[in-house]
Amino acid sequence: MAGNVRAGSRLIRLLDDRDPIATEVLRALYPHTGRAQVIGITGNPGSGKSTLTNRLISLYRRQGLRVGVIAVDPSSPYSGGAILGDRIRMMEHFADSGVFIRSLATRGALGGLSRATSDAVHVLDAMGYQRVLVETVGVGQDEIDIMRTADTTVVVLVPGLGDDIQAIKAGILEIADVFVVNKADLDGAERTEADLRGLQMLMTAMPAWLPPIVRTVAARNDGLVELAEQIAKHAQHLTTNGNAEQRYRQRARFVVASLARDAVGVAVERWLDGAGQNLLAEVASRRTDPYEAAHTALAAARSE
Amino acid sequence: MAGNVRAGSRLIRLLDDRDPIATEVLRALYPHTGRAQVIGITGNPGSGKSTLTNRLISLYRRQGLRVGVIAVDPSSPYSGGAILGDRIRMMEHFADSGVFIRSLATRGALGGLSRATSDAVHVLDAMGYQRVLVETVGVGQDEIDIMRTADTTVVVLVPGLGDDIQAIKAGILEIADVFVVNKADLDGAERTEADLRGLQMLMTAMPAWLPPIVRTVAARNDGLVELAEQIAKHAQHLTTNGNAEQRYRQRARFVVASLARDAVGVAVERWLDGAGQNLLAEVASRRTDPYEAAHTALAAARSE
Repeated sequence: MAGNVRAGSRLIRLLDDRDPIATEVLRALYPHTGRAQVIGITGNPGSGKSTLTNRLISLYRRQGLRVGVIAVDPSSPYSGGAILGDRIRMMEHFADSGVFIRSLATRGALGGLSRATSDAVHVLDAMGYQRVLVETVGVGQDEIDIMRTADTTVVVLVPGLGDDIQAIKAGILEIADVFVVNKADLDGAERTEADLRGLQMLMTAMPAWLPPIVRTVAARNDGLVELAEQIAKHAQHLTTNGNAEQRYRQRARFVVASLARDAVGVAVERWLDGAGQNLLAEVASRRTDPYEAAHTALAAARSE
Repeated sequence: MAGNVRAGSRLIRLLDDRDPIATEVLRALYPHTGRAQVIGITGNPGSGKSTLTNRLISLYRRQGLRVGVIAVDPSSPYSGGAILGDRIRMMEHFADSGVFIRSLATRGALGGLSRATSDAVHVLDAMGYQRVLVETVGVGQDEIDIMRTADTTVVVLVPGLGDDIQAIKAGILEIADVFVVNKADLDGAERTEADLRGLQMLMTAMPAWLPPIVRTVAARNDGLVELAEQIAKHAQHLTTNGNAEQRYRQRARFVVASLARDAVGVAVERWLDGAGQNLLAEVASRRTDPYEAAHTALAAARSE
């Protein structure tokens, strides 16, 4: 809580390793969280999302704000190189003691990444970072889940999606609080914005907060001030309209259910690796069906 | 089990909706599964994976085999269009009664996609399809999890990864049984293959099955026969060396743990949406920490 970077790093690493003492520490920190504005930033590889994040860090630093960054790597077997390059671009902030950057990678555990991200956000929040940016590569359910833990979610698009914009699924419309059309100097920026507005109009009910669309050219630092303004407006919307309470409850629902899943999954796997070996052999040879086995394993893991 | 396509489709849809009666039906079908060879095919968008799948369907059809296909859409908010295009390419098989194609999309539930895929595989298996191809866009943990349910996993790469091949993470080396270097007429195919072999050599222990690397040009139907041969060889390896048992147990472990997680997650969410509302409010206002709340919610959901 004094902001010690080494202590924070160590805690995040231990949490990632599911160290039980680290969990106790996190629980003790929890009442001291909730001060940071948590901003999720997601977008396709190539959307310039990392450059945008970089610019946003600089902007907040000029405002005197301390910034924590969690760069989530979904461990795509294919995209590793590109992501690494993105991360290197953030290096310029490494020497700045007002910026704390941590990378998180999935550890192979189902649902483990959103839990680890949520844990790390709480640590950075308790350390006193006023803005916590969570950057993910937006390519799947993991990322949508992670974005659910943010106060404000920024979805970064680029012109040239063309007709494909209709492929933007309900999931992304649900989680976006602010849309960015980055690389807005490219052909098609207007079309992309118009298509997005069209999609918004198709929504059955007009929401209390209609996600604004901000055009940026992050590489030239264009539009960043407006983006920060819209993010701030969204934060204000949350607090003034009493929407924060609802959002925090939704987030709590997601985090609590994830932790419950995770705890049970770990306990069941432990049981299966020990006393449950016979049951696995029965499932493998089709003598017991997996649903029945899950029932048995749950009951057994519970009573251990 | 008589192979009725409408009944099969309906069952898969009901399973996707978590219909309890559908689950009972699946459980009754389970002893009749395990006959199909389940082949996972994963690769980056642009790897030509769908064309390859398409060619493989044709090849198996010429061999007189009935083929089930599960095309998994990870509901990327961005890639929708491309995937749709890929799927349309498979349309040529729609008129063929020996081919059954189902698309599955994530329903927003954590871990729900791998459960739904596993369920659908069991249905197609029980329906008598001798080959079940599970095609995913390989971009994250979801896909790796899904591939764990396959007997043989084919990972499709393309030349030109260059140095990035080192970014291929342990996860993909772990799950790959057969590597394909598709578009092998492009520059760099040899380099990609050499890099892959280099990575394999780095593995600490020589595995009982060293994943072969097959070069293909799917668009020209080149290399497909060899691919099918390597897939068949892997199936034989599983049965002759007693490795099938180990693999089936690993798969059972994954499926049983996923089902347990899923069951608990659904129960906890239901409780949180009802009697647990107060608890969520406490977490939202930081009076209770999420770990404590997960513990409470688990106990409460259990006793309901």
